[in-house]
This record gives sequence, structure tokens and C-alpha cells, in this order.
Amino acid sequence: MNQQNLKLCSEIIDDKYVKIASNSLNAKEKLFKLLLSQRQLPEEGFDDLTIEYLLNIFATMDTNNFVNKVGVGERESRIFSALVQKRNYYMGHGIGRSGDLIASQPKAAGSSLIAKLTKHLAKDALKLSNYQINELLIVPVATGMALSLCLLTLKSLKPQAKYVLWPRIDQKTCLKCIQTANLIPIVIETMIQDHVVTTNLDILIQKINEIGPDNIVCVLSTTSCFAPRIPDNIGEIAKICKQFQIYHVVNNAYGIQCNKIANSINQGLAQGTVNLIVSSSDKNFMVPVGGALIYGNDKKLIKQISELYPGRASAAPILDLFITFLSMGRSGYLQLQKERVENYIYFKEKLQIITQKISEQILNTPKNSISIGISLKNQKIDQNNQDEKNQITKLGAILYSKKVMGSRVITNKKNKIVCGIEFKNYGSHCDNYFTPYITVACAIGLTKQEIDTFVQEFEKAYTQNT
Amino acid sequence: MNQQNLKLCSEIIDDKYVKIASNSLNAKEKLFKLLLSQRQLPEEGFDDLTIEYLLNIFATMDTNNFVNKVGVGERESRIFSALVQKRNYYMGHGIGRSGDLIASQPKAAGSSLIAKLTKHLAKDALKLSNYQINELLIVPVATGMALSLCLLTLKSLKPQAKYVLWPRIDQKTCLKCIQTANLIPIVIETMIQDHVVTTNLDILIQKINEIGPDNIVCVLSTTSCFAPRIPDNIGEIAKICKQFQIYHVVNNAYGIQCNKIANSINQGLAQGTVNLIVSSSDKNFMVPVGGALIYGNDKKLIKQISELYPGRASAAPILDLFITFLSMGRSGYLQLQKERVENYIYFKEKLQIITQKISEQILNTPKNSISIGISLKNQKIDQNNQDEKNQITKLGAILYSKKVMGSRVITNKKNKIVCGIEFKNYGSHCDNYFTPYITVACAIGLTKQEIDTFVQEFEKAYTQNT
Amino acid sequence: MNQQNLKLCSEIIDDKYVKIASNSLNAKEKLFKLLLSQRQLPEEGFDDLTIEYLLNIFATMDTNNFVNKVGVGERESRIFSALVQKRNYYMGHGIGRSGDLIASQPKAAGSSLIAKLTKHLAKDALKLSNYQINELLIVPVATGMALSLCLLTLKSLKPQAKYVLWPRIDQKTCLKCIQTANLIPIVIETMIQDHVVTTNLDILIQKINEIGPDNIVCVLSTTSCFAPRIPDNIGEIAKICKQFQIYHVVNNAYGIQCNKIANSINQGLAQGTVNLIVSSSDKNFMVPVGGALIYGNDKKLIKQISELYPGRASAAPILDLFITFLSMGRSGYLQLQKERVENYIYFKEKLQIITQKISEQILNTPKNSISIGISLKNQKIDQNNQDEKNQITKLGAILYSKKVMGSRVITNKKNKIVCGIEFKNYGSHCDNYFTPYITVACAIGLTKQEIDTFVQEFEKAYTQNT
Amino acid sequence: MNQQNLKLCSEIIDDKYVKIASNSLNAKEKLFKLLLSQRQLPEEGFDDLTIEYLLNIFATMDTNNFVNKVGVGERESRIFSALVQKRNYYMGHGIGRSGDLIASQPKAAGSSLIAKLTKHLAKDALKLSNYQINELLIVPVATGMALSLCLLTLKSLKPQAKYVLWPRIDQKTCLKCIQTANLIPIVIETMIQDHVVTTNLDILIQKINEIGPDNIVCVLSTTSCFAPRIPDNIGEIAKICKQFQIYHVVNNAYGIQCNKIANSINQGLAQGTVNLIVSSSDKNFMVPVGGALIYGNDKKLIKQISELYPGRASAAPILDLFITFLSMGRSGYLQLQKERVENYIYFKEKLQIITQKISEQILNTPKNSISIGISLKNQKIDQNNQDEKNQITKLGAILYSKKVMGSRVITNKKNKIVCGIEFKNYGSHCDNYFTPYITVACAIGLTKQEIDTFVQEFEKAYTQNT
Repeated sequence: MNQQNLKLCSEIIDDKYVKIASNSLNAKEKLFKLLLSQRQLPEEGFDDLTIEYLLNIFATMDTNNFVNKVGVGERESRIFSALVQKRNYYMGHGIGRSGDLIASQPKAAGSSLIAKLTKHLAKDALKLSNYQINELLIVPVATGMALSLCLLTLKSLKPQAKYVLWPRIDQKTCLKCIQTANLIPIVIETMIQDHVVTTNLDILIQKINEIGPDNIVCVLSTTSCFAPRIPDNIGEIAKICKQFQIYHVVNNAYGIQCNKIANSINQGLAQGTVNLIVSSSDKNFMVPVGGALIYGNDKKLIKQISELYPGRASAAPILDLFITFLSMGRSGYLQLQKERVENYIYFKEKLQIITQKISEQILNTPKNSISIGISLKNQKIDQNNQDEKNQITKLGAILYSKKVMGSRVITNKKNKIVCGIEFKNYGSHCDNYFTPYITVACAIGLTKQEIDTFVQEFEKAYTQNT
Repeated sequence: MNQQNLKLCSEIIDDKYVKIASNSLNAKEKLFKLLLSQRQLPEEGFDDLTIEYLLNIFATMDTNNFVNKVGVGERESRIFSALVQKRNYYMGHGIGRSGDLIASQPKAAGSSLIAKLTKHLAKDALKLSNYQINELLIVPVATGMALSLCLLTLKSLKPQAKYVLWPRIDQKTCLKCIQTANLIPIVIETMIQDHVVTTNLDILIQKINEIGPDNIVCVLSTTSCFAPRIPDNIGEIAKICKQFQIYHVVNNAYGIQCNKIANSINQGLAQGTVNLIVSSSDKNFMVPVGGALIYGNDKKLIKQISELYPGRASAAPILDLFITFLSMGRSGYLQLQKERVENYIYFKEKLQIITQKISEQILNTPKNSISIGISLKNQKIDQNNQDEKNQITKLGAILYSKKVMGSRVITNKKNKIVCGIEFKNYGSHCDNYFTPYITVACAIGLTKQEIDTFVQEFEKAYTQNT
Repeated sequence: MNQQNLKLCSEIIDDKYVKIASNSLNAKEKLFKLLLSQRQLPEEGFDDLTIEYLLNIFATMDTNNFVNKVGVGERESRIFSALVQKRNYYMGHGIGRSGDLIASQPKAAGSSLIAKLTKHLAKDALKLSNYQINELLIVPVATGMALSLCLLTLKSLKPQAKYVLWPRIDQKTCLKCIQTANLIPIVIETMIQDHVVTTNLDILIQKINEIGPDNIVCVLSTTSCFAPRIPDNIGEIAKICKQFQIYHVVNNAYGIQCNKIANSINQGLAQGTVNLIVSSSDKNFMVPVGGALIYGNDKKLIKQISELYPGRASAAPILDLFITFLSMGRSGYLQLQKERVENYIYFKEKLQIITQKISEQILNTPKNSISIGISLKNQKIDQNNQDEKNQITKLGAILYSKKVMGSRVITNKKNKIVCGIEFKNYGSHCDNYFTPYITVACAIGLTKQEIDTFVQEFEKAYTQNT
Repeated sequence: MNQQNLKLCSEIIDDKYVKIASNSLNAKEKLFKLLLSQRQLPEEGFDDLTIEYLLNIFATMDTNNFVNKVGVGERESRIFSALVQKRNYYMGHGIGRSGDLIASQPKAAGSSLIAKLTKHLAKDALKLSNYQINELLIVPVATGMALSLCLLTLKSLKPQAKYVLWPRIDQKTCLKCIQTANLIPIVIETMIQDHVVTTNLDILIQKINEIGPDNIVCVLSTTSCFAPRIPDNIGEIAKICKQFQIYHVVNNAYGIQCNKIANSINQGLAQGTVNLIVSSSDKNFMVPVGGALIYGNDKKLIKQISELYPGRASAAPILDLFITFLSMGRSGYLQLQKERVENYIYFKEKLQIITQKISEQILNTPKNSISIGISLKNQKIDQNNQDEKNQITKLGAILYSKKVMGSRVITNKKNKIVCGIEFKNYGSHCDNYFTPYITVACAIGLTKQEIDTFVQEFEKAYTQNT
């Protein structure tokens, strides 16, 4: 409300009250000023009114909300349903233009500002999580497709190459994103060290030599993963990539929440080649599925990805992120990270007690500070039933029926063909692990209450199933 | 967004787009300026974004939304539930102060502005509906309680008087509002003229003389009513009240939508005494139940009502009205009124055809231009069943089961005690009407489709029940 | 979603997933079953989805949302604005009927259920706060008007009486609600005991004798008040009322949050006459202004109040309460009360430190466990300026400018006419208090952070102003 | 609400009212039954309450909303912000699994049902628009990226091929989607016939022969386009593709709204090869940007696309579509299409009048029934200013400043390099067109009022600029 209108307000109610109220309006403008000038997470999160107020301002800046506007184009962001309008805060133009995913739209100044600001806020969040990167792109596709976009871009820069070297990680999307880009994955089998399943760097080098660096688009390494797999050693892989002059893409799906991974990636960035890092927006920032962050230090390359993207895209994942960043603020974001670390310790302590009680053990994988594995050595095997799966995975089923979501029971006996490649014991990231086990993750937003309930339910289910 | 912040936007996206967008923001400020300076319904209704934008500005002006505010009072409008916050647009201070229902609140400049503006918009709406009044108060209680507030105020001005003269109208609230104010109703029986049930002015005068004007708080007349009752003749009653120097309150519950009633009330205002007119906000303006308008030309008296109200009150009915007025605009409001008149004619035509077919008739009550009565002379009476009610009112039950709401079947045989007074044939507004009948209303917002369906269902039900 | 439809879902997605999902739907039905059968606050608060789901069910039960419904009444709850629809969760029929404020509405089963359930939840909340009452009515008007409704009802039961005995409390609404009911207040002056301002029971008895019990409608006592005024001694007043057979109404505006007051009222209920107790919904349950609770043990009397209310009323205050009760749950409600008590102690400790520092003192009023007074003996008085007000109240203005809301500076020098009665030193609840002072309240929802900031700002302002 | 709970309701309010209300609840279940069993657009659109009710049911079926759920996975759809929760209707799991974009999710039965149903509703909408197709996939990416996904899939099926034959159409995205897939576009220049710019089928055949069918991934033809370009002759191209056994993808971005295009595509499907058709969800169904439809008769191929997509994806575009389809209903959808056709005729009539007045002409392109071109022969050319662009495109700038969005002024003089290819007179779809012109589109949702205003503003701007 401008000065003139505030003056009109003073003719309706007591001028004194209008003055105080205008201070409040000015205070919001100051918050917005900080946001627009510093382009960082606000120190304290905005309240919902402030966020909606700002969104309404931005919506008003989009042409579809102009009063008395005439739209004679083929796409004027007319929205049929009032519910759809409302849930999109009256914005409909999406993001990007044919030329560039992050280009501003002439018809949508407000939406464009949101897109640009969210990028800055995401960069700030990464900085707060100790990532030493200077360029970032938010794409409105999830991690898998984001990886494909990276690979497609790298392929366009190295048209003769067609192989992607991929240290084995038994999550389907990690492999599939290579296939989507019409590239050929070369699996680098892992090795087992005590409890840990980890990258076999020797084989990696050997494969590079075999295939020839010129034929390799990139190495696709992975950081966030289920125990007993530990994050790939990004520092060492980066050095190898540098040595052979191969691109290096890091699948860091849900690793932003973890400092150890940040350090590992920073090491890679500093000492070797790390071209692109990809993270999920939902897994790291507690928004609905739909977006991913592509980041690194090669501004030109990241620009090329955004220019590769053909046409417009949904603004929804960006809008969710924008609202969430404003709502969290710097203090909320750091608090969530702090709580996750505390919860991880708490979870392990609780599991320590229960595993001793049932004569199992926590798999010793300290380098994985998100996922925890627990051995299932003593689970009953019916001798008449050859199908071990049915015996042990029953544990998973019991837990599921108790509304425990996300735990994974690995029985070590499944062979499976994924994307045309046969894997031994698919799910365990290696050909042969010494014990069946169950994994749980201590992800951002997990509560102590959930941990307590899990431990109870796990004990009950375990005992029931033995 | 102020100039400084717009300039910061220009550093983020193309200055050209910001310029156009700032035009749009300015256009909104211009709409707000018109609203704040003219205080009339906007020519065209605001879109939902504009309304929410304005509400967010007003909410920001309330102290409970101040950033870093400290509240050490006993009432600081802390709202527990996010859903409640949202549905109240982050406002919680209600309206009024202990001294006055329409006083501005130091803690709630925004809410206060909404209250004041809504009053102006309601006055403008009345003006558009041809009411020649110059003062108005919106009370966050429905018609009945609003009438009680009027009566309580009048009683305080005439402490010795205790009677209210009330031309019979068989709607319970109309009578009960007198009782609530601890006053004594004197029923003025109606008279029947051909099909019409109307005010008996002779008895009114006779009763005034009997009781003595000094003992009478006021006459409480009624305009909007179910056929065959027609609106009280406000012009004549006003003259009588003037002659005897008695206050006159008009219960105009849902009459704003009807021009004829406006004319009748204007006549009363011009030629006699009409002190206070009371109308429902929900029945006339399509908002949820909860508010009423008290209006007239006696500014001092209306001020006294607002000063009588003790303490604060809910802002919800006012907020609903505010949003609705902005959304309708002048053109929408007039359009709705126009459609109602057309629908009334259409409804009558349709009923004409069907009543001829079934040998019934539309009750001839042209002075009631909202409600229509249809005779039910030929409905089957089971000779073995003395209870006529069961026979004819079955028609109502059939219609109800067909999702027809709001039609009323009157069988002319019910005696009933209401507020301690016995009425013969309660429901028909008179002691003895010549036929059972059913009434329907053509109220604002009724659709042609509903009329068509009603006529079909009525014919079916009628035939089934004959 | 019924079984048949769930089966259809199984033809669209995996039956296994539908089974789990139907468990979740059943879990909600179980929550609803508990709510409908026990009619108590749920143990744990419902999440927002569950609340909205339930509200949608109830809305579907209201006739205005029937598919293909035909509305030919004068009030069919057509809602013009989509925003208004949404914010009222598609309900519009309000509460009550002409006969009774809590009567179920044929056109609005869902709204009626909400009204009934909210009443039960409010009773449960009172029980959790140790109130030993068995009947309750929620009225959609704030405390002041609710008190007027009580007085109007009592007046109707004792038509010859016209006086209300009222122990002085300097809040305008407390007095005004008597005037609204067209009754005559008799002020019972307070007495000062050390720091405490309290009821003078001797004068109360003397006045009853003077006026005569038959001429007295009731005593209107007050519990929640600003220090150094302490709550009226409800136990003793109740005994006196019993002795003289006078009605007794307790204005317990924001006392539900305080256990001491509950005990005092229970004592009154057990040992004497307490007919009606009135509390604010917003001040006790963190909802927007607009509702009040009338409660006690006289079921018949409370029924009479609800029958006195003429016509329908806004459902908004009830809906806000309903959502809030479901959202809080029993655990949330008790937690808030616990925190308030802790905050009260914390606040006092903090103030203890600061008052010593500035050579002032906390007024010693332990019986008031919500409001705290701090002496302002040493505030600068400009000898050339006779207007003490300007000197000390400046402190209040400074605090206000620092966004400190709700503190009250009392300078002990204001005479004022309120509702026609002249009060000496209005604001201080007595004719002459020994020192100017400032009051603050520790109300439900106050945060430690607010307390800390207040203490800082108070010290700064105090020092600046000395 | 199940029977048991309804019975409990009957203990709270009158059983009679609960019965009627339960009818309404049953009526909703019947609507849902029809939706789940027929999987078609509802005959009449659902009201917003019904839609929200259904969404709440579906949300309750997603595991993140289970009461007392324990989430120990890395992705549990915890949503930080209440605003984000609300705008996503409490759903967060997105769509798809690593294996398949349309696979049901174990953690999200409700979201999965929405995805499946929306697919069916979209198929029904296409059927209503006369498309004779039997398989469809909704992808949460806009048209350009959807085309890339098609091309990537076809490439994977024909790994040796690398060319895409593309009849020239000067919209950047149409070309860029080829590049994104790392394929090489071969431009098929258009030819001019009288006013019309159209496909040169001879050159197409010639190029196929030149390059060799085995090296060609597909022909990428276009239907919806700006006049004077007319839709590619899908029937003929399909025959050619069949003859040479080449894949054929149709870019039908905003053509669903147009019957002529449906006929042309049906002809292609019937008589030749049309493998995949891609349309925008926002341009055809009035939702925000973000989704696209891929459809055709090759179920296996479309399945392959959905299997190609790596990992999960945003559910937002699907949710917007779902709500919109339910809200429109069959009648609303057909009405919009009907209005568009009427508006097209109306627009042309209006333009006829104005063009005669200003001695210009409507370009004679009857085969383009969405876009209309108007010659700008007489626009002033400043002889001293060589830059024609500045002279004529000023017209566009004037219109833009009058809030006319979406008209395009083509001056015929721009050469431009797009995706590495140089185009003469880029924007006009051909190397040399006989006149500058302006285009407007008559898209779904355009109003007569917008047409009228456009014509006025165009005349004003034209005259001003001459």
C-alpha cells in the first residue's frame, strides 16, 4: 500500500493507528529488500502471512493477472479451476523459455523472480551445508531425470563417446538415467572391506584404460546410499577423472543433509575433476517430489544444461522450494541439520542396545552417516523352505504392517536383470555379502519419537519372526 | 513492493519486464485508491488475487502480525491452528471496542479498515437498491438478534414503555426478538383481502389508543414475508407512528433484493416515522449466516445502537461481506438483482402452466414479489384420517426427499403457542385462510435450472399425492 | 470411500496398496468414532488433513452442498464468492433456529454436528482445567454480549428486579453489559489490603440489604482482572448470594487458563450460588475474537439462554473453536496450560531482577496469577507540568513504539464517567492507590522470548524516561 | 463417514437429518464410483467441495499421512511448510518409480490413483475431441521435453539412426527438442501457396532418399502453428513415413482444441504411420505450464517411453489436470471447445471489418483454424531508418503497452541462427513472405470481450503507427 493510500486510510481510521500499521508494512518491505539484495535465506524464517503476501505481489507481476488484459497468444495462462488457481498462487506461466530453462519470461516477471531467487536461496543453503560451489541450476525434474540431462549435455560435448563408468550402487534410477540418455553403462563392481561395501578404484582405472578415455562420457559416482555401501570416494575418483580427462558427475541424491559428504565432494572439487553434482530437492529440503539441484563450479557447463532444456517447465517444484526456504530461514535450516546429526547418534545408541539383546550387530560403516545396517544372522530359516527370501523378508512385511516405512531387508540371494545387465545379489551392492541385514535411514525431519517406535516395533517383529 | 525493491528486482530480471509488472502493481494501488477514497462497490468486481492481496495488506496492519512483536496483554490474538489462521486471513482481533462496536482498534488497524469499508460498501449497495438512507451499521449477529439490539436501544430511550406492536407474521424469530429484549408483544391480527393476507391498520390504531403511545416502545413491521402475506404497508404505518410519536422498526430481513419494498420503505422514511430498518446479510448478499444491517436516517440513534453493544465481536460476518462486495462489484450486484426479477417472472409463468394443468391456482398476491403461493385445493384427503396435516404435508415430505429445499406447505389447521401467545392456524399469518397452499421463494441466486426442476418435481409429487 | 469404491481402486492400482491405504481410511474413521462417541478432546491433536477431511464430510452433510439440489426458500446458503466458500469450508447455514440457538438445523446436519460437538469439546476442556460444571453453551458473541444475554435471561425470570450488584473492576465492558440489558448497575467499591485491591464483601451485603434482594437481578462478579486487583472471592460471594437468594453471574473472561480461579469458582458452585459463568473463547483457547462460553450447573437456566437467543447466528466462532480443539488435542491443551504456569514464574523471576535494579517492586498480589503489576514510583515528574499522565504514560508510549503490546500504565489520577457513573482514578479499580504502576499479563501462548524482550525493552524505556 | 459413525451422529442430532445427510454422502460415493469405474470425465463438473473431499480421501491413502507412521527411509515425504502441504493437498510422493513413470507407488496409493485416473480422463477428453487413439501417457514435463523423451525412446529403438526430418516451423522449442536428444535436425523448407505457408512434401521425400531411411530416427511434423503457416499435412506425411518405414512424431502442442487437426491426425493414424503425438496440457486444458500428453495407438511404444523415464517425477502437473478435468466435466469441456469455434468465427468477422477499413487483409489461411494473420502492408517505413524492424514492430510494442499479450508482428527481415542452423526471415516459417503481418490466436478460454478490446486497440495502434 503506497503512501497515498495510507493517507486515505488515515481518513477512515485514526491516523495514529495507520502510522503504526505502516511501520509493519515497511518492516515487510525491509524483509523483501534483504531478500532481493542479499538473496540468502532470511536469518529467521518468514511467517506464512509474509510469504503469502510476497507471493501475491509476485503473482500480480505476472501478465495473466493484469487487470483488463487481452490475451491473443496461444498460451495466456488462463486457469480454468479456482482450486488450481489458488494452489498455484494464481501463477501459471511455469519457468523458462524455449532458449533457456532459467531465462526470464516477458509474460511472467513474478514467476521469473521466484525462479531466480530460489536459485540463490538454494545456493545459500548449499553454502550453509559447506558446499564450496559457485553455480547452481534448479531443474523441475527429480534426481534421475536431472542426471539424464547432465549426461545428455556431456554427450553433446563429447559426441563420439558413449560409455558411462558407474561404480555399482543397487538403486535402479542410478543406472537407468544412463540408459535414458542413450548411453552405455559400464558397471564397476564394488569391493568388501570388513563390513563396508565400497568403490574399487583399481577396477575403475583398469576399465578406463580398457575402454579408452575418449570413449567415456563420464564417471557417474554416488554419495548418498544405503549401508553397508558407503559413499564413493569422491576425492580419489575426481583425481582419476582429472588424470584421464574424463567428466565426472556425482549423484548426491540426499547427501546435502550430511557434512561428511560435503567434505568429500569439496575435496573432489579442489583436487580433481567434479563437473556436476546432482541432488534431490525433496530428500534434502522437505518438499514434495519433483525437483533437483545441479551444481558445481563449471558455470559454463551448467549454463549449457539450462540451455539444453527445450521449452518451458513446471514451476511447481521451484515454488515449493521457495516457500520452504523462506519458511525455514537460516536458523530453521541449521536446526534441522543439527537435529539430524543428533538423531543419527541417538538412533545408533538405541540400536546398539537392541542388537546386543538379540545377538545381532550394527554393521560397522562409520563413513555412511545417514543409513545404518543391522545384521539379521539369527532370523529363522525354515529348512523345508528353500526360499530364504520368504523367511527373512517376512520381517519387512511385519514392520510394514506396523506402519514402519522405508526399512529394507536384504537377503543376499536375489539375482536380477536391471537395464539389461545382470546383477548378483541385487540390492546388496555387491556379489556376496556375509549376512542378511536390514537398513534404516536417519534422514532430515525424522523425529526421536519415530526412532523410539521403530526400535520397539523392530524388536517385536524380530522376536516374532525368530 | 516499493520503488526501491522494484529496482532490486531489475537487477535480477530484465528491467523491461519489471516496468510492466510495476504497472500492474500500480494498477492494483489505483483500485485500492478508488476503494479507499470513493468507498463504493468497485465498478467491476475484483478478482480473487486482488482481494487476497488486499486482505494480506490489511492483515499486515494488525499488530498480531508485526514481526518481533511482544504481547503482554491478556488478548493478543495469538491463533493456535494454522487452518484457523488461514481461514481468517491471519486476522483475529475481531471488531469493536468496549465503547463502541464500530470503534477502530489500536491493535488492529487492518481489521478496523475492513469494518469501516464494509459499512461504506453496504451503504453503496443499499443505494444501488434504491434505499434512500444515510446511515448504516453492520452487526455481527443475524436479523433476529439485530432486531433485539434495536429494541433494547429504543427501550433504553423510553424506559417506561414496555410494549411492541407487531402486525402478525408467522415467523418465530420476528416475535421472539421482542421477548429477548424483555418487552411485551401486542399482536395486530392481519386481514384477508381476496387472496392477500395483509396488515389491519385499523386494529393497529385501535391498539395504540388502547395501550397508550407512551407505553409503546415501537411498532415492529415486516416487509419480506411468505405469500399470501404481503409486506406491511410501511408508508401507512410510518404515518401512524409519526402521528402518535412512536418509534418504528422495520424487519426487512430479505427485502433488499426487491425494489418494491425499497419504494415502500422510502415512502415511510419520507412521509412518516421509520427509525430503524434491519436486513440479513446472508439472505441479501449471498454470504454465510451471521450478520445483519441496521440502517435508516437517524444517525444519532444508529450510533446509540453501536455504542450499546458491549465489547468486541466476531469480524467473520463482516469479512465475508467485504470479500463478497469486492468480488461482486457494482455490475455483479446489479446483474444478480436483474436476474432475480427475471426469474420471478419466469417462475410465475412456469407455475401458471402447471397450476392450470392440475386445476390449482397461483395465489394472487402481486405485492409480494419474492414469494409465491400455490393453492392445494385438490390434494387428496383421506376421510378416515382426521389429520389433514398428514395428507397434505406429505407433499412437502415428497419434495424434500427429492432435494427440494425451502418450499412450505401450509394446511391451515395448526394452532400453536409461540412465545407464550396462542396463534390460530400458525404458519398462515391469519386465523383462517380459504385453502391449503404451498409457497416458494424466488430469492437472489436462484437459477432457471432450479426453477425448471422444481416445477417438474412439484408436478410429479402433486400427481403422486392426489 | 466405501468398500465398493475401494474395490474399484484395486482394479486401478495394486490391491496390496489399496489394502494398506484402506487401513489408513479406517484409522480416520476410528478417530471420528472416538470423537463422536466420547465427545472429548482427542488424546493427540488431529493433523490438518484429518481436520479438513472431517470438515469436508460435515460440509457434504449440509443441504447447500447436495448435488442437484433445488432451493426455493428465502435462505438457501448460496455463497457468491469462492473465497468466502473456501474460508467457510463450504458451510453457510450458521447455527441455531428461531427456537433455540443450539437446535439442529434440518438444512444443515453437518453444521449442527459441529456445533454440538464443539460444545462437548469445550466442556471437556473445562473439565481438563478442573471446572466442576455440567452444562455449557457456546454463543457466537464475545464475552460482553454473552454477559448481556445472561442478564437478559435472568431479568426475564425476575421481571420486577432491575439492579445488578457489581464489585468494581475498571474494564468498560464489564459495566456496559449491564446497561445493554437495560439494567441498573450498583457499584460495590473495592478495598485495598496492602498491595492488593479486592472485593469489599461488607459493602456488598450492606447494599443487598439497602436495595432489597427482590429488586436485585444478580451479583456480577469478576475473576480474571489486572493486578493489583485480584479475582473476586467467588466462594464468599456465592455464599452471600445463596443466603439472600440472588442470582450470581461470574465474569471469568480469561480465567479458564488459571487453576486458582477454577478452584475459587468450584468453591462457589459447591457452597453457594453461582448460576452462570462466562468466558471468552479467544482469550482462553487462542482463536479469533467472536465467541464466548456460558456454563455452570443449572442446565435449565442455560437452556433458557439458548432459547432466548432469537434466530440464527454465525457459525464462525464455533468453527474456529472446533478446528482448534481438534488440532490441540488433550495433550496440546494441557501443554499450553503447563507452559503458561511456567512462564508466569519465569516472568516474575525476570521482573524481580529488573525491579531491584531500578528500585521498583513487583506489586504483591499472589492471588492474581495471570497479571503482574510493577510500581513506577521513581518515574520522573516534571514539576512544571501538572499533567502527570503525560510524564508516566509516556513510558507506555515508548513501549508501544517498540512493538510491546498490552502493557498498561496506570497513573492513578484519572476521573472518568463510564456508563453514566463517575469513577475516581478510573483504571486502578479503586479510588486511591499508593503508587503508579504498569501491568503485564502472562496469558496462554506467551513465549519466553517475548518475556525476555519485554524485560529488555522495559528496562530501556524505564531508564530513558527517568 | 461409515454407517457406524453415522449412527453415532444420530445420537447427537435428529436421526431424520442424518438420514438426508447420509444420502448426500452416498451421492458423493456414487459420483466417485462412476469416476472409478467408467474413468471418464463426469457428465457435469464436480463442485469444489466434492473435488477437495476426494483429494482428501486420496491424501489419506498416502503413507505420509498415516497416523502414527514411522518413516525410516531416505524419502518419507515429510513436508516442512504448512503452506506447501496445503497447496499440494498433503501429498508429496510425486509419481512414478524408478522402473516406470506410471507405476503405482507402495508408499502413495492415493497419488497413484490420481495419476492413473488422470490418464483415463485425458484419454476421454481426447476422445471427446475426436482423437482416435487408444493409448496415452501424461508426462510432468512440458511439450518440448516431452518431444525429447519421444525422440530419445525412438533413438534407443533405432540406435544407428541420428537424423530427424523436420518441416520448418519457426518456434524454437520445436527444433531444440531434437538437439536435446543429441540428434541432428534436417530442415525441410516450406513452400508458399498464395497466402499459405505449407509443407513441401517433395523435398521431404527427396531428403529421405538422400539420407536413407535407416539413418533417420523420425519425421517430426507440426500441427498447431501460427498463420500463415498451416498445419503439416499429417495424412500425407504419415503415408510417406509408412512407405519408407520411418517413425513419425507429431508435435500437436495446442491442437487438441481444434477439430480439423484431429481429423488430419486420425487420417494419418488410419492410412499411414503416426507413432507418437505430443500435446501441451496447459495450452489445451487451461492448467499452469508443466505437463504434456504423449499419445497414439502404439501401446508398446508408449509403455517404452514411460519405462525410459528415470525415477520419480513431480505430481503437480497431473494434480492440476485432475482437478481441472473433474471441475470441467464433459459438458464444461465441450462448451469450451464450442465457444472457441464460435470465437474464431467472431474474431475473423471483427477483423474483416477492421482490415477493410485500414486497407489491409486477413491472410487467407483457412486450414489454420486457431491462428489468424493480418497483413501490415501500409505500416509506415521511415526512409531514413534502414531498420524496418523498429518501424513495424513498434506496433507490437504499442499493443504490449496496452496489455495486449500474445500478438506477434513479423517483419520478414530477420535472419537468425537457431540451434546452429541459419534461417532466413526467422519467424515467418519461410525464406520470403510477401508482406509483413501480425498474428493472433483464438485459443481456448479467450473471451469475446478480449476480442473486442483487441480489435479496438489494434485499430488505434495501427492508426497511430501509420
